[in-house]
Amino acid sequence: MTTASAPATPRLLRVLAGETQDRPPVWFMRQAGRSLPEYRELRAKAPDFISFCHHPEMAAEATLQPMRRFAFDAAIVFADILLLPRALGQQVWFEAGEGPRLAALPSIEFLADQVEASTGRLSDIGETLQRVRAELEPERALIGFAGAPWTVATYMIEGRGSEREAARAFAYAEPEKVDALLAVLVDATARYLVMQAKAGAQALKLFESWAEGLAEDMFERLVVQPHAAIVDRVRAAGVTAPFIGFPRGAGALVESYAEAVPVEGVALDTQAPAALGRRLQAQGRTIQGALDNLLLRQGGPALDARVEQLLEQWGKGAYIFNLGHGVLPDTPIAHIARVVERVTGKPARAMA
Amino acid sequence: MTTASAPATPRLLRVLAGETQDRPPVWFMRQAGRSLPEYRELRAKAPDFISFCHHPEMAAEATLQPMRRFAFDAAIVFADILLLPRALGQQVWFEAGEGPRLAALPSIEFLADQVEASTGRLSDIGETLQRVRAELEPERALIGFAGAPWTVATYMIEGRGSEREAARAFAYAEPEKVDALLAVLVDATARYLVMQAKAGAQALKLFESWAEGLAEDMFERLVVQPHAAIVDRVRAAGVTAPFIGFPRGAGALVESYAEAVPVEGVALDTQAPAALGRRLQAQGRTIQGALDNLLLRQGGPALDARVEQLLEQWGKGAYIFNLGHGVLPDTPIAHIARVVERVTGKPARAMA
Repeated sequence: MTTASAPATPRLLRVLAGETQDRPPVWFMRQAGRSLPEYRELRAKAPDFISFCHHPEMAAEATLQPMRRFAFDAAIVFADILLLPRALGQQVWFEAGEGPRLAALPSIEFLADQVEASTGRLSDIGETLQRVRAELEPERALIGFAGAPWTVATYMIEGRGSEREAARAFAYAEPEKVDALLAVLVDATARYLVMQAKAGAQALKLFESWAEGLAEDMFERLVVQPHAAIVDRVRAAGVTAPFIGFPRGAGALVESYAEAVPVEGVALDTQAPAALGRRLQAQGRTIQGALDNLLLRQGGPALDARVEQLLEQWGKGAYIFNLGHGVLPDTPIAHIARVVERVTGKPARAMA
Repeated sequence: MTTASAPATPRLLRVLAGETQDRPPVWFMRQAGRSLPEYRELRAKAPDFISFCHHPEMAAEATLQPMRRFAFDAAIVFADILLLPRALGQQVWFEAGEGPRLAALPSIEFLADQVEASTGRLSDIGETLQRVRAELEPERALIGFAGAPWTVATYMIEGRGSEREAARAFAYAEPEKVDALLAVLVDATARYLVMQAKAGAQALKLFESWAEGLAEDMFERLVVQPHAAIVDRVRAAGVTAPFIGFPRGAGALVESYAEAVPVEGVALDTQAPAALGRRLQAQGRTIQGALDNLLLRQGGPALDARVEQLLEQWGKGAYIFNLGHGVLPDTPIAHIARVVERVTGKPARAMA
C-alpha cells in the first residue's frame, strides 16, 4: 500500500495509500444534503426519502451538488444506512421531523434467506455510483459506504434511532440471536460494498454510528469482529479499494480497533485527542477527522483557530481533513466554503 | 497520601490513599434509590423528589437502606446534582417519568450574588451526612458528592436533560458567558463540598455525567479546568478528604484528565479499556469502575464472568469495584447481592 501512485490518482486515494502530500484531502460527512438549498429543492421532487435514495438520477445529482459548489477532494454516494435492512425485507420509513422507523425485526432465518437477493435490490445505488463517476473529475475520489452491522442492528432491533439501551440490553439477553443477526449483516454488507466498488466506488467507508457506551468485551464482539470480517470478505472478493473505518464514540477503544481491523483509514470522532491521532499515524495508519460540526455551524474566529490547530496537529502525517460527525442542516454555506478554501487553497464557486 | 492508615480506616479510604488490600472495596452508583422496594415506600411519603432530598431524616434513611441490605464498603449521601442550581436561585422541578425541568437561566450576576447564600440553603444535605455518619459502622466510608460544573451548566442552559447539543453550541456561541457560569459553579460547588466534608463526608465525588462528545480543547476548558479548580479550592480550605473524579464519556481524554486534575481516584465509565485502567494504576492513581449496569440488570453467567474479568484485570492494583453508570431502577436485588457477595465474601442480609 505504500508504493508511489500516478500523479492523476486522487489525493484521497494517495493519502489512504500512506503518501503524505503538500496538503491533506478534504471532504465532509453529510456534505450533500439539507445544508444546501439546491438539495432541498431537488429533494422536494421525490415523494419520500427512500424513493429519493433509490432514484439514481436524483441521488447522483445530490452527490454532485456539493462537488460543484466546493473544492472537496471526494464525493460520497448519496444513500442511507437503512437501505440495507430494507433490502433484507424489513420495512423502513421516515417520519417527517422524527427520523427513521422500522417494522418489527423479522426472524433471522427470513433475513438470512434474503441476503443474496438484497444486493440486487440495491442496484440503484450502483447506478448512482456509475452516474457520479462518469461526471466527477478524475482527480476527485468517489466513496461508497455502508452502515456497520452493530449500528444497523440497533435500528433493526429498536425500530428507530434512540439511546440504544434496548439494543445493548438485547445483546446481553439474546447473545446467540444478536450474533446471528450480525453474521447476516456482515454477509449482506460485504456483498453490498463489493457491488459498490464494482460500480465505481474507489474507497469504502464503514459507518459505526453507535460504538459509544459499549464495554470492551462487547465492543470486540459487536464492532471489531464484524468490521474485520467485512474487510476480509471484501478483500477476498478481489476488491482493492481502501477502507475507512469509523467507530464513532469508541473513545479509548479506537486503538484496539485500529490494531484488529485492517482498514487503511481510521475516521476519528469529535472527541479524539491529538495525541491519539498521532499515535495511529506513527503506526502507519491514515486518520480522518475531527472538526466539531457545531463549531462549523458557529463559525467565526474559534472555527478558524480550530482548523489551524487540526492542520498543525495532524497535517504533517497521513491525514484526511473532515468533521467528527456530519454537517448539520442549518450550517451556513459560507462556513463550509471558508474551511474548504483554507485546506485546499481553492475558493468555492459562486452559485446562482 | 501513601502513608499507612490505621486498621480501622475504611477500606475505601485506604485504597484512595494508594494502599492495595486483600480485596477491592465495592459500592455502586445509585445503590440507593428506585431499585429497592423499601426506597419506593419511603419516597412515597414525600410530596416531591426535591422535598425528599431536603428532608434529612428521609434522605439519611434512603442513604442507609442499601447499607443494611448489602455489604457495600461505602455509602453515598442521597441527594441530586440539581439541588445546587436550585440553591443558586434557578427553579428546578421533576416531571413524573420525564426527569428534571429548570426555569430559564438567570443572569450570571444574579447567580454570582447567590453563591455565598447557596451553601446555607444546602445545609439539609449536611444534616443528612451527619445523621448517616452517626449510624454507619466506622469501617464503612461515607461519600459526599456534587455535579461537576459543565454537567450542571448543561442542565441550567437547556432546562432539562438532553443530548446536550444546545449547551455545547452555547459554549461556542457565548464563550464568555459560559466561562462566567462555570466560574460561579466552581465557587458554589467548592463551598458545597467543603460543607459536606465538615458534615462527615470522608471522600468527595465529582460527577461529570456529560463529558462525551466534547472536542479536546473544549474538554480542557469545560471539564479539566473546572475540576482542577474545585479540587484546589477545597484543598485550600483545609479539607483532606480524597476526591474521586468521574469524567463520564471522556473516552481517550481520561488520561489527560488524570494528568491535569489532582483527584486521588478516577472513576471509569463502562467503555474504559482494561489497559487504560492499568496505565492509570501504574501512574499511582486509584481507579473505580466499570461494570455495565445493563449487564448487572441482565444477570446470569455473563455477569459472573464479567465480574471475574474486572477483578482479574484491575483487582491487583488500587481499585474500587463499581459500575460504569448508576444502578438501573429495574435491576433485580439478587443480582446486586450476588456481585457484592463475590467481591466482599459477605452475603446480603435477608430483608423482611
